[in-house]
Amino acid sequence: MPRFEVIAFDADDTLWHSERLYVDAQSEFRKLLARYDSPVDERLHQVEMRNLRHFGYGIKGFALSMIETAVELTGGRIAGADIQAIIDQAKRMLAADVELLAHVDETLRRLMDRYPLMVITKGDLHDQERKIARSGLANRFRHIEIVSDKTRQSYEAVLRRLGIAPERFLMVGNSLRSDILPVLAMGAIAVYVPYELTWAHEMSAPPPVDQPGYHEIAHIGLLPDLLERLERPRT
Amino acid sequence: MPRFEVIAFDADDTLWHSERLYVDAQSEFRKLLARYDSPVDERLHQVEMRNLRHFGYGIKGFALSMIETAVELTGGRIAGADIQAIIDQAKRMLAADVELLAHVDETLRRLMDRYPLMVITKGDLHDQERKIARSGLANRFRHIEIVSDKTRQSYEAVLRRLGIAPERFLMVGNSLRSDILPVLAMGAIAVYVPYELTWAHEMSAPPPVDQPGYHEIAHIGLLPDLLERLERPRT
Repeated sequence: MPRFEVIAFDADDTLWHSERLYVDAQSEFRKLLARYDSPVDERLHQVEMRNLRHFGYGIKGFALSMIETAVELTGGRIAGADIQAIIDQAKRMLAADVELLAHVDETLRRLMDRYPLMVITKGDLHDQERKIARSGLANRFRHIEIVSDKTRQSYEAVLRRLGIAPERFLMVGNSLRSDILPVLAMGAIAVYVPYELTWAHEMSAPPPVDQPGYHEIAHIGLLPDLLERLERPRT
Repeated sequence: MPRFEVIAFDADDTLWHSERLYVDAQSEFRKLLARYDSPVDERLHQVEMRNLRHFGYGIKGFALSMIETAVELTGGRIAGADIQAIIDQAKRMLAADVELLAHVDETLRRLMDRYPLMVITKGDLHDQERKIARSGLANRFRHIEIVSDKTRQSYEAVLRRLGIAPERFLMVGNSLRSDILPVLAMGAIAVYVPYELTWAHEMSAPPPVDQPGYHEIAHIGLLPDLLERLERPRT
């Protein structure tokens, strides 16, 4: 019997590109507000953080926060056409192609014969479902969980529902804050796969490299080898 | 053994008031745009329908559609302060108290001893979870499912996951389109409890009163009696 009962993956920036949509949108937003001499990025981040409890994660909340930031930074003088440009940008983000990261396709194909695979992702339900459907990966996964936030409690609820003990659960993801630290805190195994871009909100100091259960790999293609090592009986 | 393996409830306007938040917001929106001589409600509905495939259901998408409608109706001359007023309205909606409908509390209390209860609701994950938590009803339910849309397919997926046959599933809700027709289509039992307000998008012709599996009651307090009748062996 394999050591792990399920291998779970974060989706955004673990299976497919996502953060770069936000980075591109923010760059458009910066251009839109270029005539106002103000630190756009910092203010947008403040507004996003302030609104998180209202809006939660995802593109629709991001769009509302961009609009609010634009109204604030322009003292209300933002043009209607510019507001519409922000909404259109959000729609483009919501309709964007899903581009898989390198090695994702063959890695999942290789692992799915050996383990039940699972996705645990957060954000807008509608948008996350669309991406899973468009990714072409839906049938690789036994379970798909879309959660509003990734905390120790939300992981514990998922494991309880599936009847899986933490030590038999392994999570793979690119966010230390959401995919790694809460998973380690409940006594499960976490594999950190850094992505080239990280939203400031998801940043966190990594755990000590010798922390039990913590592993880091450079890309997801290295996961099967790591799993083989972890499955080997310790002598 | 009871005839039904689970009794499922819609949440918005079945367990607690919701549509009136939208109606109030739309009335504020109408006042905001009063100086523009244009049929606000009709245009807002068109924009909402057009945006549904991008935004899905829920308050954040509603807010973005109000903003877009305001930009359109004013030919881009909408003031920044008015845009902010729309965003603030959305935040108030997202922070609104959860007010239970009459009879909900005692009805659930009475039924939970006899049946596993369930919520199946659609909309923003973050917002729906907040309402369930704030309602004080969370521990009455064995299962909570938040879905992006309520179609025959989404109900079938829920039943498959729980291993429940359609004829042993009963759904209670106020939307013919979302709670009743897809449930009847898969061969389950549906109890329609009309609410005083219905969003145009959720309207639908009711099924014939003699359609097998279809029941209508005036308020949720009448559900236990209906269930008792349905449980009685037919002679």
